[in-house]
Formats: sequence, C-alpha cells, structure tokens
Amino acid sequence: MTRWFPIPLTDGLTLLAEAPAAENGPLVLAGVLLSLVVIYLAAKLGGEVCARINLPPVLGELLGGVVVGISILHLLAFPEATSEASRSLIIRFLESTGGLQPESALSVFEAESEVISVLAEIGVIILLFEIGLESDLKELLRVGPQAAAVAVVGVAVPFAAGTSGLIALFGVPVIPAVFAGAALTATSIGITAKVLAELQRLSSREGQIIIGAAVLDDVLGIIVLAVVASLAKTGEIQIGNVIYLIVAAAVFLIGSIFLGRLLSPYFVGLVNRLQTRGNLLLSSLVLVFVLSYIGAVIQLEAILGAFAAGLILAETEKREELAEKVVPIADMLVPIFFVVVGARTDISVLNPFVPENREGLILATFLIVVAILGKAITGLAVFGQPGINRLAIGVGMIPRGEVGLVFVAVGSATGVLSKPLEAAIIVMVILTTFLAPALLRLVFRDQAEVADKMLEAIATTKPEEVESVKE
Amino acid sequence: MTRWFPIPLTDGLTLLAEAPAAENGPLVLAGVLLSLVVIYLAAKLGGEVCARINLPPVLGELLGGVVVGISILHLLAFPEATSEASRSLIIRFLESTGGLQPESALSVFEAESEVISVLAEIGVIILLFEIGLESDLKELLRVGPQAAAVAVVGVAVPFAAGTSGLIALFGVPVIPAVFAGAALTATSIGITAKVLAELQRLSSREGQIIIGAAVLDDVLGIIVLAVVASLAKTGEIQIGNVIYLIVAAAVFLIGSIFLGRLLSPYFVGLVNRLQTRGNLLLSSLVLVFVLSYIGAVIQLEAILGAFAAGLILAETEKREELAEKVVPIADMLVPIFFVVVGARTDISVLNPFVPENREGLILATFLIVVAILGKAITGLAVFGQPGINRLAIGVGMIPRGEVGLVFVAVGSATGVLSKPLEAAIIVMVILTTFLAPALLRLVFRDQAEVADKMLEAIATTKPEEVESVKE
Repeated sequence: MTRWFPIPLTDGLTLLAEAPAAENGPLVLAGVLLSLVVIYLAAKLGGEVCARINLPPVLGELLGGVVVGISILHLLAFPEATSEASRSLIIRFLESTGGLQPESALSVFEAESEVISVLAEIGVIILLFEIGLESDLKELLRVGPQAAAVAVVGVAVPFAAGTSGLIALFGVPVIPAVFAGAALTATSIGITAKVLAELQRLSSREGQIIIGAAVLDDVLGIIVLAVVASLAKTGEIQIGNVIYLIVAAAVFLIGSIFLGRLLSPYFVGLVNRLQTRGNLLLSSLVLVFVLSYIGAVIQLEAILGAFAAGLILAETEKREELAEKVVPIADMLVPIFFVVVGARTDISVLNPFVPENREGLILATFLIVVAILGKAITGLAVFGQPGINRLAIGVGMIPRGEVGLVFVAVGSATGVLSKPLEAAIIVMVILTTFLAPALLRLVFRDQAEVADKMLEAIATTKPEEVESVKE
Repeated sequence: MTRWFPIPLTDGLTLLAEAPAAENGPLVLAGVLLSLVVIYLAAKLGGEVCARINLPPVLGELLGGVVVGISILHLLAFPEATSEASRSLIIRFLESTGGLQPESALSVFEAESEVISVLAEIGVIILLFEIGLESDLKELLRVGPQAAAVAVVGVAVPFAAGTSGLIALFGVPVIPAVFAGAALTATSIGITAKVLAELQRLSSREGQIIIGAAVLDDVLGIIVLAVVASLAKTGEIQIGNVIYLIVAAAVFLIGSIFLGRLLSPYFVGLVNRLQTRGNLLLSSLVLVFVLSYIGAVIQLEAILGAFAAGLILAETEKREELAEKVVPIADMLVPIFFVVVGARTDISVLNPFVPENREGLILATFLIVVAILGKAITGLAVFGQPGINRLAIGVGMIPRGEVGLVFVAVGSATGVLSKPLEAAIIVMVILTTFLAPALLRLVFRDQAEVADKMLEAIATTKPEEVESVKE
C-alpha cells in the first residue's frame, strides 16, 4: 500500500489535543481508535447474528472476537500471543496509512494492546458492578446456603472426577493431573451473569443462586489456584497462604458490604449536596474503583470489589437512577471485554487435522465431559427450594471463560503441564465457554415454555389459581 | 510503610479476570484504577468548589488537576515530565501496598500513564462529539462568514502584535519571536465549548459563532504550526505542506459532513434494524472513532473528526436519544481530559521568587496582554449581527489550553526557544486557560443581568412587548 499523504504522521499527530506522553503517543491513540472500531463491529455483527438465530448476543461477541483475533483475522493481536508486532493487522495498517515507522512498531503495538487490555478489564469491572446493582442483597443472603452448596459441589466434583480420571484412565502424573482438575473448578461469573441478564433471569431465584454460587466459586477458585500453584512450584501446600486467602475473602466481602450499608446514607447525602454534572455517577465510580483496587490488591479479584460496590449501591434510593446511567457506559465498555476474551482465544488447538493436536483432543474430550457433567449436577445440591430449575442452575455454572485461561497461564508459567494437557484444558475452556450461553438459553426457554403451557391450561379455570401458580 | 499482606501481589493479581498482556498487566490495571479515583476526586472537589463560588466547574477540574499533578501532590505524574517512576505517588503507593517491585516500577508507570493519556484523549473526543451533537449545522453555516472573520482576526492580530512586539520591545531574534507569536494564535476549543455548555450558551448565536471560529482556528493553528515548525527546522517554509494541510482540512470537514448527511438515512435505517443492546450508541461510536482516526491520520486532529461526527448525527432523528446516552459517557471520560491537562501543567514557572523565572515572567506579562487583547477584539470582526455580544465572542476565543502547550512542545523539540521565552509561553497558556472560563461566565452573566433588568422594566408594560424583547 502506498502512503496517503506526503509527510510522516508523527509530525502531524503531535497536533493532537495535548502533548503526547511518549513520542509515539498519537500513534497509540490512533491504534486504540482503530481497535475499538474493530471491536465494536465484531461485537455488533456477532451479536446480531446470534440474536437472529436465538442465541445469546454475548456468544456472538465472543465469536466475533475469535474472528478478528489471533486465530483468524489478526486484526486484534496481543504481545503475549505473538512477539512480532507485524502480525497485528492494525499495526500494519498504521504503518501503511499512519506513517508508523517499523522501529517504533513494537512499542506502539505493546502500548495499544495494554490500553485495550485495561479497557477490557474496566469493561468487566463495569459489568460486575451492573450485575451487583441488579442483584438483591436480601435475596442473595436468603439463597446463600443453597449457593454455597452449589459452589462447593461445583468445585469438589469436577476436581475429584477430573484428577482421578486423568490419573486412572490416562496415566497422567499426579501434579499435572491435580492442576488440570483444578482448572475444571472455575466458573466465569462474567459470561454467566451476562447471559442471565440477556435472558432477564438475573433476579429470578435461579439467577440469584447462580450469581451467589459463581461469586463464591470465584473465591474458591482463587484458593484452589493458590494451592495448586504452590504445589506445582514447591511440591507442598503453603497453609498460611490458604488461610490468608480465606480470611481475606471473607473479611473483604462481608466487611465491605456491612460497612457499605452502614455508610451508604452518608454517601447518598453527599451526592445530593453535589451540584455539578455527573455527581451520582462519578461518586459511584469512585466507590467501584476503590473496592476493585482493594479486591485486586489483597489478592482476590477486582471484579469482586466491583460486585460488592454494586450490591451496596443497590440498597440505596439511588439504585434506579444509577442503573439507568450505567447502561450506556456498560454498552460502551462491556463488549470490549467479551471481544477481547474471544480475540485472545487460540482456536488452532481445535484442529484435528494437525497430528500433534490429537492427544490433546482426546484428553480434552474427557475433560469436557467432566466439566459439563460435574457442573450440571450442582443443581442437585440445592435444598429446600421446591419447583426450582435445578438443571438451569447447574448449566449456569458451566462456562469456564477467562478464569479457566488463568489456570492455563499459571500452569504454563510453572511448567507442570505437558503440551497436550495444556491444549486439552484450553479446548475444555473454549467449549464450555462457547456452549454454556446456548445451553443456558435452552434450559430457561424450556422452563418458560412449560410454564406458559401450564398457565394456558389453567387460564381457563379460576384467575386466583393462575396468580398462585405465577408465584 | 509495611506491606499489607504476606505475598507479592504479582502472584495474586495474575488471577485477575484474564491472562495479563504483560506480566505487569494487573499492576497496570491497579495503577489505572487508583489514577481514576484520584482524577474523579480532584474533578469533583475542584468542580464543586468552583460551582459554589460561581466559577465554571471545568475551571475547578483544571485546578484540581494542578493540585494532584506534577506541580504539587505528584499523585498523577507523566513520564515526559519526570523520568523517575518514584516521583509518581501512585507508583509508590503500588510499591508499598501492591507488591510492585522497584525494577518493574518504570514500565508499570509508563504503561499506566499511557492508558490514562489515551483515556484523556478519548475524553476530549467524546466532548467534541457531544458539542457537535448539540450544535446546529444550519446555524453554524449561517454564521460561517462571521466565524471565519473572528478566526482570521484572532490569528492575525495576536501573531502580528506578539511577533513584532517581541522583536521591537525585547530584542528577541526573528525565528523565536515568530514561534512565540504563532503560539498566541491557538484557541482551545475544548475548554471554550465546555464552558459554553455549562453556561447553556452553546446554541446561542454567540455560542455558535465561537464554536465555528474555534474549529476554524484549530485548522488555522495546525497550518501556522506546520509553517513555523518547518521555518524553525529548515529556515524556509514548505509551501507544498501548507497547501496540503489547507486542502486536507477543507476536503475532510466539508466532505465528511456532506457525505455524512447523504448517508445518515441509511445509518438510521441500519440502527433501527439492530436488535441487541447498545445498537445506537455503538454504531455512533464507530462513526465517531472512524472520523477521529481519519482526522488524526491526515494530520489534522482527532477532535475535528469527532466534532464532524456529532454534526452529522445531530441532523438525524436520533439526535435526542443519542445525546441522552452520551451524557453518562461524557460524565465518565471528559473530566479525565481536563484533570490531566491540569496535572500536566507545571506551575513552578509562575513562582517570581525563583530568580531564573523573572525574565520569563516579564516576557509573559507582555504575551498575556497581547493574548487577551488580541482575542478579545475579535468580536469586533463580526458583521451584520446587530445586538450580538461582541465581547463574549472575543473572550470565548481567549483560552489557549492544550493547543498552546503543543506549540511549546514542538518549540522545545526544535530548540528555537530560549528557556525564558519557553517559560513565558507556558505562563501565557496557563493564565489564558485558567482566566477564560471565569471571564466568559462574567461577560455572559452581565448580558443576562442586563436582559433581566430590561425585562423587569418592560414587564410592567404590555406582555406582547416582553415577548418581542425576549426574542
């Protein structure tokens, strides 16, 4: 391609709205703008296609991400997947249209990817804040015991079945088998919550049990990962670390919600006294980001802090006003997260025609069966809730998503995973992540259809009976 | 300070929602979250204080930025101002609470600053999009000749007076004097537009003349900068480059608005067929970011593209729905821009007790007088608009803002500016930027008070007369 204009862009781009942070600053901005355009087009195209064939739009965003990502189009690439900046089509586009010099390409590529990654993280923080805002703390506490049962079964069963199966059936050594078993325990709260919101089931009892269980599962997953990571590194379990994580999680979640409820009247009072534009939104974002920072810094997760902030603010009189204001922000930032998750996924491990993939695919088949069944049965752990959709709860726990990939990343770093086992875990994560939204829609749809038919049948009888069934 | 927990954060933070782009990714996110908290607190504190003493909130955001920035608290620092990461308090906070290792501090600092800088740029892009959306293309075209006259006078008078004054009164050599004169020509469209919006004067005739003139001034400023930069570098003016910029600006602004109006019915039709969440917002953001990218890449400015996108979409039936959705996004991102502009401003050059500042301050006094008078008289260039507030138009053109700092950055890079002259330009930029919002409020208030008094006096007479005066 020839250049569109006679002078290198770096001269002209210095004219952007302010003095650039580094001399490549303007090109980084240009790269970020292009990446966002690609992300939004992928999200909308994928989402619209999925919506039309009755699949959850978020699945379309993930698939759209796969198409534009490191697996197929290379429009979005990331330094950890490729060290060559030239493999990112956006960087090549910048070189040919933006006057980016080859010697600056790598640093621009890294900076642009860093910005997109952080935007994706802020996207999932906003998503979890929105989910917290739509959740009902009282309902969540009421279904707490059920959620805890679901979370514990959903960690214990896949871990035990996966680890023992790998050892017994495939002769995998103990430590890698434990690691792979641990990777089966994760649940992606982001994907599940987003699908539930799309199906408008977030505030149903099933929805609240799933959300509660997914949050607890997140905490359990962190503890499991800490255990297996230290096991893989040193061959022993650091009990102190495990106790620290359990205490930190409990103190953080209970403490922030308790303190938050105590202090929220003062927060509302303060917001009401502010006069400038965006008073409620910015004050709330300060709370969200502070709790996210604390969640991250005490070795839990940023998203747990964001969820806690949502729960706290949901209890205030500002809930509806705030929820309305968060919608456009979530619309803008959340798709970045899902498209980036898809774009980072390397689906080449799924190709059965590559001989070295085959051993991994066989292991993967086993892991997938355990992953799906091990979570699907968790609904059976729910007690004292007659008439509840147990299958929906179990299915809601299936997607491993980005959390599963963290296990792979840590496993790679410590070097305990063989190449085929690593690939198998990735395949398991991909399939559970991409299947779960469709399955979840299916199990909730069936229920809705049954309910509709029941209501229809009863509609001919007395109205008060219909009311009682609806409840 | 002691660490809050027993294990380095980098282990724990790997658990963040996805595999990090670089191994420091999670710490970068933590740094960005902290920076955003600091930015929002500074914006709200400054904004609320200013709102209470009847100054525009945006001035408070700028001043809040100064307080947390490189001049005073060092909470927000930027690599171009200091090469030591340890001078950023946020980085030191991360080191003591987040387990950031000293050897990674610089790269985390740079990445975090890059992300905040890009967020600030996206903030001013969203601001100009919002301003475009609130503008009226027909009104803007109708006042076009007046706006052009204001822009041309506002470039010619300060340039001629500044350059000749520096040569004649202070014996400054020709090329640096030309450079300093050129720096006097800029107008910060962002600050002016924001103040007008806060005063609810954006759609007044004065407001539209100021916006039109500021946009043209932006284009003229780019051309002036290209001229003086090549003059400083090679000693001669590259005519081809100047012609290119003029043609590119004309083709881009006229072309995008013409094409946009032609294609906008298809855009609306497409948006109406989309079914998934955020259809209007994301489709619009794609247009905004594409035009911003083109604006940047053809050596104009990203914000010109964003403004054009706003003008285009303002002509569609979606205007109001879209404007409503953009509000929370602007509330979230625009303050980042103003606080960052303030945080980057080094006010130490204003200290008269430092002997080496004195020569600069004397030069600055002269530049400030020229800067204010040279723009204030531009209102006189408005013709055929009886009863218009000429002073308000002139005052609206005063703030140099971030555009003025670009001149300083380019001047520094080419080495033509002496230290005192460079400091003098910075002082001029600071004072015009920080004074203009207050002055603008004053001149519009006076007008409002006069109008109120007139109405009051007339109110005792016939009602139909009051109506005609109001118009």
